[in-house]
Amino acid sequence: MTEPLAEHANILFDIFVMLAAAKLFDELCQRLKQPTVVGGIFAGFLIGPSVLGWVAPSAGSSMLAEIGVVILMFSVGLETKLSTILSVGRTALAVAVLGVVVPFAAGWWLLRFIGESQAEALFVGTAMVATSVGITAHVLAEMGVLATRSARIILGAAVIDDVLGLLLLAAVSSAAEGPLDWAAVGSTAAAAIAFVIVIAALGPWVVARTMPFVQRQRAAGWVFSSSLVLCFALAAAADHAGVASIVGAFLAGMALAEFTSGDPALHRQMHTVGELLVPFFLVTIGMQLKLDVFAQPETLWLAGVLTLLAIAGKLVGCGVAALHYGWREAVRVGVGMVPRGEVGIIVAQIGLAAGIVSQSLFGAVLVMVIVTTVIAPPALKPLFRNVAH
Amino acid sequence: MTEPLAEHANILFDIFVMLAAAKLFDELCQRLKQPTVVGGIFAGFLIGPSVLGWVAPSAGSSMLAEIGVVILMFSVGLETKLSTILSVGRTALAVAVLGVVVPFAAGWWLLRFIGESQAEALFVGTAMVATSVGITAHVLAEMGVLATRSARIILGAAVIDDVLGLLLLAAVSSAAEGPLDWAAVGSTAAAAIAFVIVIAALGPWVVARTMPFVQRQRAAGWVFSSSLVLCFALAAAADHAGVASIVGAFLAGMALAEFTSGDPALHRQMHTVGELLVPFFLVTIGMQLKLDVFAQPETLWLAGVLTLLAIAGKLVGCGVAALHYGWREAVRVGVGMVPRGEVGIIVAQIGLAAGIVSQSLFGAVLVMVIVTTVIAPPALKPLFRNVAH
Repeated sequence: MTEPLAEHANILFDIFVMLAAAKLFDELCQRLKQPTVVGGIFAGFLIGPSVLGWVAPSAGSSMLAEIGVVILMFSVGLETKLSTILSVGRTALAVAVLGVVVPFAAGWWLLRFIGESQAEALFVGTAMVATSVGITAHVLAEMGVLATRSARIILGAAVIDDVLGLLLLAAVSSAAEGPLDWAAVGSTAAAAIAFVIVIAALGPWVVARTMPFVQRQRAAGWVFSSSLVLCFALAAAADHAGVASIVGAFLAGMALAEFTSGDPALHRQMHTVGELLVPFFLVTIGMQLKLDVFAQPETLWLAGVLTLLAIAGKLVGCGVAALHYGWREAVRVGVGMVPRGEVGIIVAQIGLAAGIVSQSLFGAVLVMVIVTTVIAPPALKPLFRNVAH
Repeated sequence: MTEPLAEHANILFDIFVMLAAAKLFDELCQRLKQPTVVGGIFAGFLIGPSVLGWVAPSAGSSMLAEIGVVILMFSVGLETKLSTILSVGRTALAVAVLGVVVPFAAGWWLLRFIGESQAEALFVGTAMVATSVGITAHVLAEMGVLATRSARIILGAAVIDDVLGLLLLAAVSSAAEGPLDWAAVGSTAAAAIAFVIVIAALGPWVVARTMPFVQRQRAAGWVFSSSLVLCFALAAAADHAGVASIVGAFLAGMALAEFTSGDPALHRQMHTVGELLVPFFLVTIGMQLKLDVFAQPETLWLAGVLTLLAIAGKLVGCGVAALHYGWREAVRVGVGMVPRGEVGIIVAQIGLAAGIVSQSLFGAVLVMVIVTTVIAPPALKPLFRNVAH
């Protein structure tokens, strides 16, 4: 019965601790009427290097986190039909564009205001931009409000936002290396936009034509397995096309949504897989929260102002774009777009490596990413209570 | 929506290819009336470095494989009650002991016969010993015959076999470094045996007392999550105690078996998780099969004889121990114990690193492990057809 893989002993222990902590804090959140997301992130903070030090971020844990968020966004896609996104397409586009422009301008202005260089201001502006929709999607799915208009606007805007953030990153990175290479930025743009449009348009059509064939096969579990295959295929392809893997996973789910809406078995199976894998995504976010950044008062001030601007930027930018649906809906959309993801950290890291962004500014960006991620879920929950349309 | 983890792009692509290939060959096996295991291994061989080269073994794929086999053995444990193992305990013990002694003696004898050193003969004998029960368990679970007496003997013997193989490895490794350290071997033995006995005896008792508490919690999915937590906790603990992680996972499942036999939801959930993760275990085995070892006729001959002795050793050793149940049952048990696992490769690697085992002998052990793994499933399937008790 022996298959000892000594080098993996740690990951088994890590999985045990991460799952146990996530479940305990999930229970706590249920009792305090808070979303599960908060519990998962707090569990990660507690078991991570900052507090107990039981588990540290590793290649293994970040791989499980990546698979977890891919599964999460695929499940959200499964409950999202393309037609319902297109019905709010114009608003989603406006939300995405203003949600990029306003935070970028705010970040750029702050850095110029405190006397930093043009290059540093451009990098920080870019780090303020990209929405991390995984957190919001988890809260909305948990509350069963993915079909509301606000949720559809958020999901549509997040896909567009991702493409815009990517272009900004390409432009700023190439600017950091020398004069701006418009051809490279243009080809990045073309690949990303083409990927999203082609997959969104052709996906449901291809699925509708291949699924009857899949269902005729003899081995058990073909629908489940081929759904997972599509999910990981498009996640990998999205990454290859320069878009985030979770955009590919979301589009894969959306391609299947039309076909599988009458198939409760697939939804139940994805729910089970998500219960195992999504906690790794949440816990890993919490593990990255380090306390030592709070030791320097200067960094703390900068982090505080940056975080306030990051929140206000999305609230105002996205909110204004959705204001024609009334101010309640504007606030819902604005808050849903607040969480920033790893792309902010990655942008800051590129700037740090290029010697443009300082260590203390990098710490401030880290704080901004974590705080925007942590505060959105408790704010979202009351906003989406009793929402019918 | 951006969370690009560029360094993980490959693992998403690898997951896509591994899942797709495994499912296609699963279908082929269904049509040819072969067990799924064969399809998974062959899929891995095909997409791996030897043939198409689409996916290569990596830290990520081997981690997923480890998680896959942990989930597999946990699921098998869930269908195995301690009482049913104990009812065949004496036979299982005899099967394990003879199944260790005979292949060890055969491997040792072959190496001495062709004129190799005592040390090399001891290493190869040890590499012949450890049963990899994952493959057999998968076939038996797929056929729904885990409750038969033959299956219970195999599972019980595999647990004991693992402890014995571990002791032999400890003894031979310490012998390779100098005079045999009986104290170290003794403490390894004590830790391993204590772990298995304590967990097997106390597990069901602890589960029966904690599960009612678990079921009173408010958050959804507590039974599923806490089962997974127990699975990974005992897998990690087993590894820490020096036993294979899959022994811990199996014991965790067995501890829950009594309590959850009336809970079809948990079995369905584990089945879903297994459909996602077990293919990685099978495909990864196939990926390790390299063709270049067959280039040298000398290695090929050695591999052939070693493989024949490995098969005959388990068939005769384990078969004789189960012969009082009739020769049909003896053959079933013998064939079920034939697959060798990674421990054989690890033993040979230690010998290789110590300069005791030659490159060509190492290649021969690799072939032996793969061939015994591949031939057992097609042989098992007809043997277990129409078995009622």
